[in-house]
Amino acid sequence: MDRYLVISSDGHAGLPPERYRDYLEPKYRSIFDEHLAQAIREREEAEKFMLISEFNTRWRAEAGEGLRGAWDPDIRNKVLDRDGVVAEVLFPDGITERNSPPFGADLGMRPAGADPELQWAGARAHNRWMAEFCAHSPLRRIGVALVPAFWDVEDNLREIRWARRNGLKSVMLPVLVEGQASYNHPRYDPMWELIQDLGLVVNFHSGAAPDYDKETPGWVGVYVCEYQFWMTRPLFAMVFGGVFDRFPRLKVSFTEAGGDFWWHWMMQLMDFRAAVKKGSAKMGDHSRNLSMKPSEFFRRNVWVGSSAQMEDARMEDYYKIGVDRIMWGTDYPHPEGSWPDTPRQMAGSLGGLPEPELAAVLGLNAAKLYDLDLAPLNALAAKIGPQTSLFNRQAA
Amino acid sequence: MDRYLVISSDGHAGLPPERYRDYLEPKYRSIFDEHLAQAIREREEAEKFMLISEFNTRWRAEAGEGLRGAWDPDIRNKVLDRDGVVAEVLFPDGITERNSPPFGADLGMRPAGADPELQWAGARAHNRWMAEFCAHSPLRRIGVALVPAFWDVEDNLREIRWARRNGLKSVMLPVLVEGQASYNHPRYDPMWELIQDLGLVVNFHSGAAPDYDKETPGWVGVYVCEYQFWMTRPLFAMVFGGVFDRFPRLKVSFTEAGGDFWWHWMMQLMDFRAAVKKGSAKMGDHSRNLSMKPSEFFRRNVWVGSSAQMEDARMEDYYKIGVDRIMWGTDYPHPEGSWPDTPRQMAGSLGGLPEPELAAVLGLNAAKLYDLDLAPLNALAAKIGPQTSLFNRQAA
Repeated sequence: MDRYLVISSDGHAGLPPERYRDYLEPKYRSIFDEHLAQAIREREEAEKFMLISEFNTRWRAEAGEGLRGAWDPDIRNKVLDRDGVVAEVLFPDGITERNSPPFGADLGMRPAGADPELQWAGARAHNRWMAEFCAHSPLRRIGVALVPAFWDVEDNLREIRWARRNGLKSVMLPVLVEGQASYNHPRYDPMWELIQDLGLVVNFHSGAAPDYDKETPGWVGVYVCEYQFWMTRPLFAMVFGGVFDRFPRLKVSFTEAGGDFWWHWMMQLMDFRAAVKKGSAKMGDHSRNLSMKPSEFFRRNVWVGSSAQMEDARMEDYYKIGVDRIMWGTDYPHPEGSWPDTPRQMAGSLGGLPEPELAAVLGLNAAKLYDLDLAPLNALAAKIGPQTSLFNRQAA
Repeated sequence: MDRYLVISSDGHAGLPPERYRDYLEPKYRSIFDEHLAQAIREREEAEKFMLISEFNTRWRAEAGEGLRGAWDPDIRNKVLDRDGVVAEVLFPDGITERNSPPFGADLGMRPAGADPELQWAGARAHNRWMAEFCAHSPLRRIGVALVPAFWDVEDNLREIRWARRNGLKSVMLPVLVEGQASYNHPRYDPMWELIQDLGLVVNFHSGAAPDYDKETPGWVGVYVCEYQFWMTRPLFAMVFGGVFDRFPRLKVSFTEAGGDFWWHWMMQLMDFRAAVKKGSAKMGDHSRNLSMKPSEFFRRNVWVGSSAQMEDARMEDYYKIGVDRIMWGTDYPHPEGSWPDTPRQMAGSLGGLPEPELAAVLGLNAAKLYDLDLAPLNALAAKIGPQTSLFNRQAA
């Protein structure tokens, strides 16, 4: 084949806020109606800080109709065709943070201030819509179900079974920002067991962080230095809590983690801490019960959805993490992503790599992680995938 | 001189809990009496998790009388003489976490659950005692005043002036765990200005962290992976908040940060984030107002109190951070420190380094940071310092 199969590990899809109404259980619709105007206003306020207005306006104008691919399946497929992408993993928060599922069931799913029942209602509304959206083009959509996991674990189990039955292939759990029950708590064991048994993939996606004071100078700089930490906390908890020891077939992906040297650092940090040193002897041998080094669990159980931030890649880090762990993502339709220019950006970041590694990072790793049937994917890639010749040069 | 001047950047001193009573303002003594028994019980409970009992008991037995140097100035000087240490920077929490100042004015000074007035009373009691303790041997003691900084900034200013008048050379501020006003907030500007004008050193010391659930497996592993992050958050806030731009002579030391590759990583991370990338363009140019790269501020305004964790040093990281930034610390009398075996541990970690760099890391950097008079320090070092010949070999 003279084209690569591209599977984006990081896409976003979701309805305009008002259209989630139809996917909510009827009993939540009146409270949805009451809160909608305020929710939209709050999103727009928040966006003033997140998207400086000049950038935002220009970007939306340039992006044009393609943005509607966030919820319109036909437009989305056209965008993917032009962008050389066969299939995508689909997270919420379609067009930036402005259109998220209701009641705090967004990319962050933060527990602080959330009403558990309403957050679940919002998550289920999104999951229902997502199942429908995937059913439209099952080959091209790898649906992620939202599971706001900190409340009643029985609810988690129910939704995970529902997700599997309805064709979704992954569950997204919230990262750790506040003092909720961390993922080293044994209460989650039935959840890990079920996810493992059903062959689903756990996803953590970056984004959530504490409420930085947006009136203070430099808070964005603080946020962009800290967001990777908030999303890494589940990894510490799962490794040292022995989750990967008890559930050795569990598959976890960390998506849009930004600057993937980070994961190589974290592998070193965990290995360093797991080796009993004088400095932590007073706290006991906290790694005595682990059967492998943390970095070994990482290389067995963890994948990295690198998103378009592979533009910042240091290839030596990828080799150290393991090239079989890394997955390109376009982040479509978010403005920081590679869309609508994905093939050129890919070639700029990865051109010159050996062909088997390019094939792995661009698509085969994701196909393996999500257990996809390669034949129909390759058939489509043969028509729309980026040509291998694009990559025939030294990496920048 | 055939001996090195050693100044430990990390020592701990404090009274047994009941003896803080005499240093409290009288109006707080009855509430102190009411809470003492419970406070001691809570410390001992906490210690069960932090110091596994077998290790703890063995360590206390071996340590013997030296532990009383936590508050006894004559014993302390004898210990220092035997350990080859001329002077020390003195933090609270004398013998491990068991004897801390009252009312949450401990190494963490966490705001969560604290009563501001009482936390201040505890901090002032410690500061009064510390000033007295330093006055006993002013050459050998570099006193650190506790400033629980999150409440009324006027109180901070008052205590900082008091500390300077009473011979203390540094103020310790709490690291950032919960959602308190971060150090990029302009409310702290009068504090930075005063500290800079008085020539004091700001210290952040590791230790504070959220309340991990101590019934869950692996929480210690999580803690030892995360504690560096909690103490690094003030750095992000100060760098991106422009504090080092507005107060270019401010001196900040991060003490016992553990595995100093960390700081080299953080310098890279901040520089990477400060360079405007597509990924953060939607959030605006958050580094536009910085006059230098974050790593350049680090090399100008920041020092690292490396403590005995230099046993884990990777020298290439020290060279990248800047050998003029790094200071050995014994952590006496904490069990994870190098006491009572400091010269041998130093030689094991640093032997083979060029002499000027050894002299800098072992003492001269600290002397410069804390603006100390070298002549009397060198006179004492000539009697008790570790012999230079100890270090005449290749580093391990």
